[in-house]
Amino acid sequence: MTRMHELLEKYPVGKVSYLTSSLMSPVYQVTASAPVNIACIKYWGKRDTTLILPTNSSLSVTLSQDNLRSTTTSRSSSSFEKTRLWLNGVEEVIKPGARLDRCLAELRRMRKENVEDKDPSVPKLSTWNLHIASYNNFPTAAGLASSASGFAALTASVAALYGLNAFPQHPSSSYSPPADASQLSLIARQGSGSACRSLFGGFVAWEMGKDSNGRDSLAIQVAPESHWPSLHALICVVNSGKKGTSSTAGMQETVLTSELLKSRIKDVVPSRMSSITQAILAKDFDSFAKITMQDSNQFHAVCLDTFPPIFYLNDVSRAIIAIITELNRVSVEATGHLVAAYTFDAGPNAVIYTESENIKTIIQLLLNYFPIDFAASPFNDSFQLFGVGHPSAAPFPKGFNENVSRVWEKDSIKGLIHTKIGDGPRVLGEEESLLNVEGIPKTLA
Amino acid sequence: MTRMHELLEKYPVGKVSYLTSSLMSPVYQVTASAPVNIACIKYWGKRDTTLILPTNSSLSVTLSQDNLRSTTTSRSSSSFEKTRLWLNGVEEVIKPGARLDRCLAELRRMRKENVEDKDPSVPKLSTWNLHIASYNNFPTAAGLASSASGFAALTASVAALYGLNAFPQHPSSSYSPPADASQLSLIARQGSGSACRSLFGGFVAWEMGKDSNGRDSLAIQVAPESHWPSLHALICVVNSGKKGTSSTAGMQETVLTSELLKSRIKDVVPSRMSSITQAILAKDFDSFAKITMQDSNQFHAVCLDTFPPIFYLNDVSRAIIAIITELNRVSVEATGHLVAAYTFDAGPNAVIYTESENIKTIIQLLLNYFPIDFAASPFNDSFQLFGVGHPSAAPFPKGFNENVSRVWEKDSIKGLIHTKIGDGPRVLGEEESLLNVEGIPKTLA
Repeated sequence: MTRMHELLEKYPVGKVSYLTSSLMSPVYQVTASAPVNIACIKYWGKRDTTLILPTNSSLSVTLSQDNLRSTTTSRSSSSFEKTRLWLNGVEEVIKPGARLDRCLAELRRMRKENVEDKDPSVPKLSTWNLHIASYNNFPTAAGLASSASGFAALTASVAALYGLNAFPQHPSSSYSPPADASQLSLIARQGSGSACRSLFGGFVAWEMGKDSNGRDSLAIQVAPESHWPSLHALICVVNSGKKGTSSTAGMQETVLTSELLKSRIKDVVPSRMSSITQAILAKDFDSFAKITMQDSNQFHAVCLDTFPPIFYLNDVSRAIIAIITELNRVSVEATGHLVAAYTFDAGPNAVIYTESENIKTIIQLLLNYFPIDFAASPFNDSFQLFGVGHPSAAPFPKGFNENVSRVWEKDSIKGLIHTKIGDGPRVLGEEESLLNVEGIPKTLA
Repeated sequence: MTRMHELLEKYPVGKVSYLTSSLMSPVYQVTASAPVNIACIKYWGKRDTTLILPTNSSLSVTLSQDNLRSTTTSRSSSSFEKTRLWLNGVEEVIKPGARLDRCLAELRRMRKENVEDKDPSVPKLSTWNLHIASYNNFPTAAGLASSASGFAALTASVAALYGLNAFPQHPSSSYSPPADASQLSLIARQGSGSACRSLFGGFVAWEMGKDSNGRDSLAIQVAPESHWPSLHALICVVNSGKKGTSSTAGMQETVLTSELLKSRIKDVVPSRMSSITQAILAKDFDSFAKITMQDSNQFHAVCLDTFPPIFYLNDVSRAIIAIITELNRVSVEATGHLVAAYTFDAGPNAVIYTESENIKTIIQLLLNYFPIDFAASPFNDSFQLFGVGHPSAAPFPKGFNENVSRVWEKDSIKGLIHTKIGDGPRVLGEEESLLNVEGIPKTLA
């Protein structure tokens, strides 16, 4: 048993205390990781930009932390002179009243009301400053939204530190989200809307709610990852010439200028939320895939209906859509079923959902159109599809119309990431701490 | 006075009769030309695919025939054994019941009812076969819809031949559309929906109508070309890798699968039709431009909301949008006014509307991003903007953010066409006939 595990037995789960020779005041610390989530029903538009209340409900799949994760160490000490945060080793300014500050204030309030006011013997962590270090194991250049996993990891680590919540240790044979994860999702939501969905594994709905105070705008788990473990995802990292419109700014431009968004919110999303939930519960891939693709298309349609228009898809994204559309056409003809579903967030990268057995075929198909220099961008073959050597193209499926796309310049897709559906935030061992004994990121020490 | 003018005095305008040694039966013939039109409020979706009744009203600008036109010669002879049609010198099969056949049947019916039944002395042209030759003076590769100008020229020439209508000769100092052009637009519409708008010059609305028989789905002139003669257009012919979805097929896919189209039809287009009409009547370029850009964006948005999605814009189209958006931003900052409006039909080509004085600046701006080999694609400088030599790039306008687009490979835009707002169909002189004395296209003789 590690020292951390001893301490975990002594203190409530998630709190670690130690003394060092240089620092005599008590120190509490938790490190947690949280997953990336990719929406099938997209979040685009806020009705309240401060509380981050959305104009429509959304639904996502949580991707495995074994492949993509944010890790956050939060340390509380009475000796810290101010609260500080480092993101990927770079210190960020914590602006009073801004998102991060608001999240931390909410967590402190919950610590005080739910823990300290009830048990005067616990240390008054709500009054101490924090040092927080957060790290994404995927490059920003991958174009994956890191704010969702980042704010989820921050919320999970501070919540555990404050004794508000016990996200499970990992690995665990019986992982299930803590009872109050939805309550914590209210806090993560205020950091970054879609972060609320990263507090659960599996399939997660963010219910838009009705209250103007946001109390009912929270995430719930529709089904755990164990419900449909064969659901895999292939992320195609697409080379993008220039940085697109930020989603924070973009979605409010859409709210202000798109006539079609109103119809999406009112007429389309409510029935899609209910249909995709049913599809997930029935493991009906055809319906799941069709709704996912339609909703990705519609999200990009309302971006285009914004004035001036917002574009996230580029010609490579469109070629991926054409290839998956043709693959599905051939498959429906042969078997009556769809094979894959594309979805695109606020950028040109594709996420392709499919059953695990199809991932290899899809990679081999894509490589006919998109030569990738795997020596420069190694493929992490976590599921051992290809044995030794790099993945390579294979002959086209029978009846496939090769002309749906041209062959692209090398590295138009600059990398592939294969992952699967995954669990929610995990409390990690002390050895994963990102802070050194002085409370600054180890990477800086 | 030419022989044709003599004949025009002898016979109703538009009818030409002559005898030849080889062909003793009387022959009547008219040649007419018709313009291209580019919609500001887009037509996309039919409620009746046979009668070609649209799901929403639309509005277009007629471009000058001096630059882009379809020319059609229609000849009627009792000696013709069957009705034949040549398009750009290639004979087309006239399928019974198909669009062309239906148009001709309607014209024959009108000839009989409106002319022959009233005056038994006129020749029974409605019972004779026709030879028709049509020619577009712009290459199909230019990606401009030729069916609109083509069916308009056909309708205008046969209508004149049948004495149904007297489209004016050109040049004419007092061009105005004939009183029954809207009635003829009912026929052109059945050939190709947007053809009905090419029966008028200037600004033309296609009112969707309500009748299930289509009798009220017709074109009307909102304002003649003389109302706003300084309105010019710059067509950017964009290289496109592959042929996109045909508009005929595409729009019905949208009708069947896009939820957002319903909202566009019901909530958006009616008010845009009225706003842009007011903007045109007031020569309010700011409103005209904004609505035009918004409606182009929304048309492409509903294409994207189609399942599978339809894409017509490519990365070059999007770069043009970004450049015009930035040019407008800088202009609004400096003067409070927009400079230019982009619009895109079912393809990647941009049409940019602007006041004549801005065309040169826009060309010089675009050339910074899109080098064009003018030796291979000569610029027809009809308005003498550049004097001798090819157009070339000029320094960016003050405050213009150059980074809105990268610099593209040579000939990503493969040509520029500068034109202006223009008139409706013209009856041409005999010397413009596309048919030789035997009644086959001169190009084949």
